[in-house]
Amino acid sequence: MAVITVVGAGMMGSALCVPLVDAGHEVRLVGTPLDREIVAVLRATGEHPKLKHALPREIRPFQVEELGAAMDGAEVLGLGVSSAGVRWAAEAVGPFVREDLPILMITKGLALEGGELRVLPDVLASLLPAAVRERIHPVAVAGPCIAGELARRVPTGVVFAGRDRSALDRLAPLARTPYYHVWTSTDVVGAETCAALKNAYAMGMAFAAGIHEARGGKEGSLAMHNYESAVFAEAVMEMRRVVEMLGGDPDSASGLPGVGDLDVTCNGGRTGRFGRLLGQGLSPDEAIRRMEGATLECLEILRVMMDALPRYEAKGALGADELPLLRHMAEVALDGRPIDMPFTKFFRRRP
Amino acid sequence: MAVITVVGAGMMGSALCVPLVDAGHEVRLVGTPLDREIVAVLRATGEHPKLKHALPREIRPFQVEELGAAMDGAEVLGLGVSSAGVRWAAEAVGPFVREDLPILMITKGLALEGGELRVLPDVLASLLPAAVRERIHPVAVAGPCIAGELARRVPTGVVFAGRDRSALDRLAPLARTPYYHVWTSTDVVGAETCAALKNAYAMGMAFAAGIHEARGGKEGSLAMHNYESAVFAEAVMEMRRVVEMLGGDPDSASGLPGVGDLDVTCNGGRTGRFGRLLGQGLSPDEAIRRMEGATLECLEILRVMMDALPRYEAKGALGADELPLLRHMAEVALDGRPIDMPFTKFFRRRP
Repeated sequence: MAVITVVGAGMMGSALCVPLVDAGHEVRLVGTPLDREIVAVLRATGEHPKLKHALPREIRPFQVEELGAAMDGAEVLGLGVSSAGVRWAAEAVGPFVREDLPILMITKGLALEGGELRVLPDVLASLLPAAVRERIHPVAVAGPCIAGELARRVPTGVVFAGRDRSALDRLAPLARTPYYHVWTSTDVVGAETCAALKNAYAMGMAFAAGIHEARGGKEGSLAMHNYESAVFAEAVMEMRRVVEMLGGDPDSASGLPGVGDLDVTCNGGRTGRFGRLLGQGLSPDEAIRRMEGATLECLEILRVMMDALPRYEAKGALGADELPLLRHMAEVALDGRPIDMPFTKFFRRRP
Repeated sequence: MAVITVVGAGMMGSALCVPLVDAGHEVRLVGTPLDREIVAVLRATGEHPKLKHALPREIRPFQVEELGAAMDGAEVLGLGVSSAGVRWAAEAVGPFVREDLPILMITKGLALEGGELRVLPDVLASLLPAAVRERIHPVAVAGPCIAGELARRVPTGVVFAGRDRSALDRLAPLARTPYYHVWTSTDVVGAETCAALKNAYAMGMAFAAGIHEARGGKEGSLAMHNYESAVFAEAVMEMRRVVEMLGGDPDSASGLPGVGDLDVTCNGGRTGRFGRLLGQGLSPDEAIRRMEGATLECLEILRVMMDALPRYEAKGALGADELPLLRHMAEVALDGRPIDMPFTKFFRRRP
């Protein structure tokens, strides 16, 4: 039994508390300033308003100003903030961070810093107090996990990825339950790169459904699945290439963090809906309006990648003809160009 | 322009004729003895009764006894028979086969011969007349392709895989159209192994939907997608392992023949329906009855693999703890054991 404090009471941070409490730990869930209403509802009703599901009553909800109390005696720190909240989180938890306090983060993303793409666990570590930042290697959770399903205890398989093998060996056994299956990997670059890119690629796969709908097609086994699955295969090959470029292990893209997470992301959610709207022929602005202010991680990662690629090309790490799918998705979703899937440019290395 | 004769007028053989005729070739479609009714309807109405779609009228249908006329002047031979029909096809086309007549086959499968798993292009070649069998290397079509979508000219990406680079270089340009995208690969073992195994793995992925339905769950973004996507990732890792064991290139499993074809196979069709029925708790016998006599390639390939694995284990090419998903699917679908997905045995090499 351990005392585990999770900061960030959004869907994924809250869902992560379910296996942790089922594994017998004392679990404290702390809202960010944006989660005030969630924590209030949780306290009043026991139900998480975004997950639309009751959380186990053993999970203790805290408002952000109670962070100090929630961190008192904590043996593991979970971070459930969004990628935009990483800077806030580093400042908020900084005073409580110690070398022997493992950090488990569900935040996904890539950031361009000093001309290099960096995975968020490294970004977070760099924002921690100077005294500890060199010796803390946060562990990231990757792999296919819809938060609402995890909260309902659907069998789920994830990867805990981090540079510090001892932190992995300590955290993974704490989190395992009969329905939450945890593997470990030191390939944090591979796992987190896939976790970030999958949002963009899931958008591109959803173009197919949108094009089909725009032509009056119906759901069913005859649609544009051939198109979608060819894009899926190219997406995995491009994820392998980006991972390799960043010094990770391409096989992470063929496993849970790549294939698995990309597949699950296509099963609904914001990214898929946005891709479908673009496929139907809506402009990015119209599509964004229809999404009613939902955060679109796919746009975020496309912007980062389009800033980064020229730098990697300039140093000879990438060819200008590589990643044709990623580049076309950026043309469509960022520049408003019509969809014209560049199939003939796919699979330069192997199909 | 070439004269292309396709033998086998089932859904996939017939669908393949559509890009071939659109590419400007003279295309002749010959039914097997089992396709008599299809050819008759095609001749009478122009519509393919199984594809439920009209074929371009330039495609000339032939009954099996007209095979000689259909082969007269043929410059490419297409084989659209099922794996069960390969022996028949070899005998039927044997008299017409010449060294300079490239063979393009859509038949998928693995056969256990002399204790070794062999891909069907090699099996077919071995059944051809002695005078040519050493010098003919049939080209196989792999990758995500629902026949009904190809017949409706949905953008489709496939791999022509064969040992003979010159045959690939001759066939691929003949078949390409603006919607039929063809890559080539000499990794016929990798491509065909994935093409065969994907039917089994798609069945296992469909367990998730069946279990969800049996519990009264509805379709939607909250179901058992986490389960399904973890199985998908393990399936790709197991396909990589089998391909490697058979001397092919594991990366074929991460591209069109593996990831792509497995994804498309999950979008409906017989295999997915059968897996769902098993997931709902039906016995294999009951599930087979519900399928009303449809050919279940997943059972065929599971039987072949379960015969083969002990032989590969005996010679030290495979560990008894490898391929846990494949082995469990065989327990369920062949032996009638209840589903108890062995998640904890997954990802022995990497997640």
